[in-house]
Amino acid sequence: MEKEFVKSITAMDKDFAQWYTDVVTKADLVDYSSVRGSMIIRPYGYALWENIRDALDGMIKETGHENVYMPLFIPESLLEKEKDHIAGFAPEVAWVTHGGSEELAERLCVRPTSEVLFCEHYKNIIHSYRDLPKLYNQWANVVRWEKTTRPFLRTLEFLWQEGHTAHETDEDAHEETKRMLDVYATLLEDYLAVPVVKGQKTEKEKFAGAKFTYTVESLMHDGKALQSGTSHHLGDGFAKAFGINYLDREGKLQHVHQTSWGMTTRVIGALIMVHGDDRGLVIPPKVAPTQVMIVPIAQHKEGVLDFAYGLKERLSGAFRTGIDASDKNPGWKFNEYEMKGVPVRLEAGPRDIEKNQVVLVRRDTGEKLIATLDEVEEKLGALLTDIQQNLFDRAKELLEKKTSVAENMEQFKERLESNPGMIKAMWCGKRECEDKIKEETGATSRCIPFEQEKVSDTCVCCGGKAESMVVWAKAY
Amino acid sequence: MEKEFVKSITAMDKDFAQWYTDVVTKADLVDYSSVRGSMIIRPYGYALWENIRDALDGMIKETGHENVYMPLFIPESLLEKEKDHIAGFAPEVAWVTHGGSEELAERLCVRPTSEVLFCEHYKNIIHSYRDLPKLYNQWANVVRWEKTTRPFLRTLEFLWQEGHTAHETDEDAHEETKRMLDVYATLLEDYLAVPVVKGQKTEKEKFAGAKFTYTVESLMHDGKALQSGTSHHLGDGFAKAFGINYLDREGKLQHVHQTSWGMTTRVIGALIMVHGDDRGLVIPPKVAPTQVMIVPIAQHKEGVLDFAYGLKERLSGAFRTGIDASDKNPGWKFNEYEMKGVPVRLEAGPRDIEKNQVVLVRRDTGEKLIATLDEVEEKLGALLTDIQQNLFDRAKELLEKKTSVAENMEQFKERLESNPGMIKAMWCGKRECEDKIKEETGATSRCIPFEQEKVSDTCVCCGGKAESMVVWAKAY
Ligand SMILES: [Zn+2]
Ligand SMILES: [Zn+2]
Repeated sequence: MEKEFVKSITAMDKDFAQWYTDVVTKADLVDYSSVRGSMIIRPYGYALWENIRDALDGMIKETGHENVYMPLFIPESLLEKEKDHIAGFAPEVAWVTHGGSEELAERLCVRPTSEVLFCEHYKNIIHSYRDLPKLYNQWANVVRWEKTTRPFLRTLEFLWQEGHTAHETDEDAHEETKRMLDVYATLLEDYLAVPVVKGQKTEKEKFAGAKFTYTVESLMHDGKALQSGTSHHLGDGFAKAFGINYLDREGKLQHVHQTSWGMTTRVIGALIMVHGDDRGLVIPPKVAPTQVMIVPIAQHKEGVLDFAYGLKERLSGAFRTGIDASDKNPGWKFNEYEMKGVPVRLEAGPRDIEKNQVVLVRRDTGEKLIATLDEVEEKLGALLTDIQQNLFDRAKELLEKKTSVAENMEQFKERLESNPGMIKAMWCGKRECEDKIKEETGATSRCIPFEQEKVSDTCVCCGGKAESMVVWAKAY
Repeated sequence: MEKEFVKSITAMDKDFAQWYTDVVTKADLVDYSSVRGSMIIRPYGYALWENIRDALDGMIKETGHENVYMPLFIPESLLEKEKDHIAGFAPEVAWVTHGGSEELAERLCVRPTSEVLFCEHYKNIIHSYRDLPKLYNQWANVVRWEKTTRPFLRTLEFLWQEGHTAHETDEDAHEETKRMLDVYATLLEDYLAVPVVKGQKTEKEKFAGAKFTYTVESLMHDGKALQSGTSHHLGDGFAKAFGINYLDREGKLQHVHQTSWGMTTRVIGALIMVHGDDRGLVIPPKVAPTQVMIVPIAQHKEGVLDFAYGLKERLSGAFRTGIDASDKNPGWKFNEYEMKGVPVRLEAGPRDIEKNQVVLVRRDTGEKLIATLDEVEEKLGALLTDIQQNLFDRAKELLEKKTSVAENMEQFKERLESNPGMIKAMWCGKRECEDKIKEETGATSRCIPFEQEKVSDTCVCCGGKAESMVVWAKAY
C-alpha cells in the first residue's frame, strides 16, 4: 500500500478566499493555465456543470424555447448599433484584429453577450405577428476582459446560456422576463439548494440597453452576495436600433419587444460558497456527479471486492454510483470524497458482508446509518432526498441569520460589520444615495425585492421619503 | 386560409452547389449573418446537431473518456512550442491583440484546436504511470481563418469535439487511435447512414505534428469526397516539446504517448449531400429532430384536430413527434416537411378517423402505408428502422457505383471525368507522384484504406514499384 498524504485546506474562518481557492483546486474542479484569467474545467467540475446545464436546458425547452448557435465574433459596427449597449460592453471586450497574417479591415470583438447578433437575425426572420414569439436560447462561451479573476466567479471566458426572445407586446415580454427569472430561481433552489432573493435591479445596476433587469441574488458563507442569474426586459430599444418590425394583427407595422436572460458557470461558485465547509465541497445530490461513493473496507480480504463491485452494478441503475477500489487506504479515501463533496459514502467490509448490510455516511452531517441489503436502495434514495432538503434548509437559515435591517447609516455600517450579509433598508430612489452607500460601506444595491417590506418610512441614506426597500450587500 | 407559396430549390443535376445552398437555407438549418464566413445554426439545424452530439458523446463516455473544458485563447508562445504544429496552423488563426482599450503584451490566438492547452495541463497533472491513461474530450467552438466558406462544410468558426489522450506506450496510443476512428465510423454508418472508407492519411495530408492520421472518408452525391472525422497518433513529439513525463512501472522517467481526434458540424454537410434529393433534405431517423410529422387533413371538420392531437400525445413517448395544425394547406405542409427531410409524414383526415386508421408516408421512397390505430406504433417503429437501413444501403450502393479503378494516368483522368467519385489506384509512396496527381486531375489522396486491394503492380503515376493502394478523389 502506497503512503498518501491527506490533502489539507485552509479553514474558512481563517481565510475565506484561500479556502475557496483550495477547494476548487484540491477537489479537482479546475486547474490554471498560462492563459491569464481563464480556467481549465477538469472532469469533476465539468460533470457538475453538465448536470446543472442539463437540468436548466430541460426547463428552458419545457417553457417552449429552442436552442440555436450564433457566431463567436461580432463586427465592431454591429456592436455599435445600440448606444447604451456598446457603452456598457466596449471597455471589457477582446478584439480580433488579424486573421492569419492579414490585418482585418474591420476589427471583430469576441462576443461578451449576443444581443446584437440575435437582433440582426430577428430582423431577417420576423415579418408578421405569425412569426412571434421567437423563443431562442444558446449555450456558448463568452469573453469579458476582467482585470481580477477567480475560478467560476469572474473569469475572462465563461460558459453560459443566453436566452433571447421577441414578442408582440411589452406585456408578453414582461411575462417572459418573469417566467425565466422563475426558472432560474427553481434551478438554484430546487437543484443547487441555494435560496435566492428575487427582485429588480436599480437603474444603476441594470443591463446595458435594458428597460429593466430582474435578478436572483444569493448569499455566500462569508456574507457576500452573488448575482446568480439575470433576466432583462429589453423593451423596444434594440428593435428600434436594428429595425425589427412586424405586421400586427391589424396590419400595422410595429417594433417587437424583447428579452434576454443568462445563467453562467458562476453558479458553481455559489454552490461551493453556500454549502462547502472546512472539509471541502458539499454537493447537492440532484447535481452531484457521484451521488454515492463505495469504499470497500479491508478489500484484500476474500469476497470484499466482489461484494463491492456487485453493489456498484446494482446501484448504478438508480444512482450515480462510484467505487474506489484503488490501493489507497480507507482513511485517504474518506478524506478524498469528503473533499469532493460526494453526498453519501457507502462502506462495505467483511463484517458488513457477514451481517448482510452496508454503512451509509452522509456528507452534510457526518451521520452514519446501517442499511440491510434488501433496503439499501430505499434508504439511499430517502437519504439523498433528505440531504438535498437539509442543504437548502441550512442555507435558508444562514441567509435569514445574515440578513439585518437598518434604518439609518450608522445602523447600516454597524450591522454590516457585526453580521456581514444582506441589509434590508429603505431607499429614496436617488442615484446619489446609492452611490454614497457604496462609497461609505462597500455595499451595493443587490435588488429591489419583489417581496417588499416597509422596514422604515425614510431613506436609510438621506432621510428623504422612501420609495422602496432595497437589499444591499458587499458582492462578488 | 392564407395563400403560401411552395418553396423551390435548384435541381441537384443542374447546379449541385446551388442545390446545397438552397437546402441548408430553405430547410431552415442555417442563416447568414454579417460575420463573414460564420453561420447561424437555426433551431432545426441545432436540434439535428444535438442529436448527433448526444449520440457521439454517449459513445465517447462509454469508451471511458471524460469531458473537460479548456480556454478559448492560446498565448502565441504556447502555440509555438511544437514546431510542425505551429507551422500547420499559424496561417489560419485569428489573433486577439487588444483587451478593452489595452494592447496586449503577447497576442492570443483563438484556438484552431487545443493540443497545446491539453499538453500544458497534462504536464501539470501527469507524474506517474498511475496517472495514465488520461482520456479527455472537449466539446467546443474553434476558429480557422478560411478564405472560402460554405455552411457546415467550411466555416470560420465551427463546433466540434476534440479528444486528447495520454498513454504509457506507443501501442496504447495506437489502440486508442484505432478505437476512436471506429467510434467515428459507427456514428457515421449507424446513425447518419453514411458509409465510410477507413484508412490512413499520407504524410502530406496528415495532421500538423502527428506521427500519423487515420480518417473516415465519405462520398457525396456529386462525386466529391468529404473527410468526415480524423484520429491522430501524436507519438511523443508533443510530450517532448512540452516535457510531459511520467515515472514508469520500473521507476524510469518516460515521455507519454498521445492521440487526438475530432469530429465537427461538418458531418451535417455529409448527411445533407449523401441523402438529400431534389425535394430537399432526407434525414436518417436516428438523428432526425422530428421523426414523424402529423398533418391533419380537412382539419376544420369536427374531431380531426382532437384526433390528431391525441395521436401526437400518444406517439410522443416513443417517437420524436411533431404536428402542424397551422392554417396552411396540406399541400404546403407536405412540401415543407419533405424539404425538411422528416422521415415519416402521418396523415389523418375524416375518412381515416372513420376507418380507425392513419396514412404513413415515407420520405425516402414516397411510399404510402395504411396503419390501423392499434398497430400504428409497431408499423411506425418498423418503418423508421427500414428507412434508416434503406438510406445506408442506397448510399453504400452509390459509393460503390462511384468508385473506379485506374492503372495509369489516362485511365485515372478518364474515369474521374466519366464517373466522378473515388479512384482506387496504386501509389509508389512518393510525394512527387501525389503532387502530380493533384495538379493534373484535381484529385487528392483521401486515404490509404485499411482494406487494401492490389489493383495493379505499379504506381498509377510514375509506373514505379507500388507500395499501397490509395483512394483518390476531388474533395470538399
Ligand atoms: Zn436617499
Ligand atoms: Zn509514383
